[in-house]
Amino acid sequence: MRISELSRRSGVPTATIKYYLREGLLPTGERTAATQAQYDDDHLARLRLIRALLGPGRLSIAEIRDVLAAVDDPPESPLDLLGQASEAIGGERPADEADLEPARDLLAELQWSVADDSAALHDLARALAAINQAHLKLIKGGAVAYGKSMHRIAVAEIATVPTDAPDTAVRQAVLGTILIEPLLLSLRRLALQDAAARKFGDH
Amino acid sequence: MRISELSRRSGVPTATIKYYLREGLLPTGERTAATQAQYDDDHLARLRLIRALLGPGRLSIAEIRDVLAAVDDPPESPLDLLGQASEAIGGERPADEADLEPARDLLAELQWSVADDSAALHDLARALAAINQAHLKLIKGGAVAYGKSMHRIAVAEIATVPTDAPDTAVRQAVLGTILIEPLLLSLRRLALQDAAARKFGDH
Repeated sequence: MRISELSRRSGVPTATIKYYLREGLLPTGERTAATQAQYDDDHLARLRLIRALLGPGRLSIAEIRDVLAAVDDPPESPLDLLGQASEAIGGERPADEADLEPARDLLAELQWSVADDSAALHDLARALAAINQAHLKLIKGGAVAYGKSMHRIAVAEIATVPTDAPDTAVRQAVLGTILIEPLLLSLRRLALQDAAARKFGDH
Repeated sequence: MRISELSRRSGVPTATIKYYLREGLLPTGERTAATQAQYDDDHLARLRLIRALLGPGRLSIAEIRDVLAAVDDPPESPLDLLGQASEAIGGERPADEADLEPARDLLAELQWSVADDSAALHDLARALAAINQAHLKLIKGGAVAYGKSMHRIAVAEIATVPTDAPDTAVRQAVLGTILIEPLLLSLRRLALQDAAARKFGDH
């Protein structure tokens, strides 16, 4: 199909598609003339993926480039690919090593085995520091209770990652990590509304 | 204390404090001379709150202004304040009403009672559409399983909101909604690492 047809079928404006092509997010089509190229269903699928990562996934163009690189060239070990996915979308590392103590203590209590320099570990440290600074009262069981709840979900999620097809595995692992986050957050906010209505409402 | 002391104790540069003062996020201190003002522990606490919302909370200056307005002038009903907190930090509403169908179906299956025009409902609709477009395989039980997991947490969280102190209640509800999100996401990524190590690792 031509770029105009790709635009029509994906709902993405032609100018935006050209931007993704320039940024290397979308592979160039097969050139059929000096100013014309042909695109196929793979381009359409990739375009939908980019939109999902940019929109609900809230990734930056640079993060999407890293994620797509992992999808296109998956590492052999399923464990490596999960690490790669997690790092591609991870946050910054703070300067002060000492801030990591509370996060490491929590992981020790949960008995989790994770990479010691993981971006998520630094994210956890910042989240705990913010909760602490705001003097926020946690639920019964504290951060450990949140951890156990997330671990139950994670075990079910890892069960969906195939062990025999690396390219399907990396896609499932990367997209599962990113696209489930907005699902979880929106469900939590709605669950809070329902729980509050049950406790404080008239019915 | 003077602004230099406030800066030293909070770790926030003087220029940044002045920016928050100009933006109205931080109330002005008591003026003691033409170019000098005094600040107290309330300013210090508010400054730490702003940093928590800006950093791990990832809110914009405009969103923080809305959240602080709810904290400073809490509505009387605990239910209203939760709705207000949720809206202050909610996403945009999409143009197309029809897109909300799958989200409404999911809420009906979960038997949750939520506001029909909630920003979180639109966020949920976008999250479901992205998962659908990416052909992502969900865990056993699908989105309903995620919802039930979030609801168990939400009930425990709502139990921490006091019913007799509106100002403490709004603080707990708003900050709980915002500051727990980065905690949940970082714990989920680390839980995925641990679950993957258990399934695919050598030990």
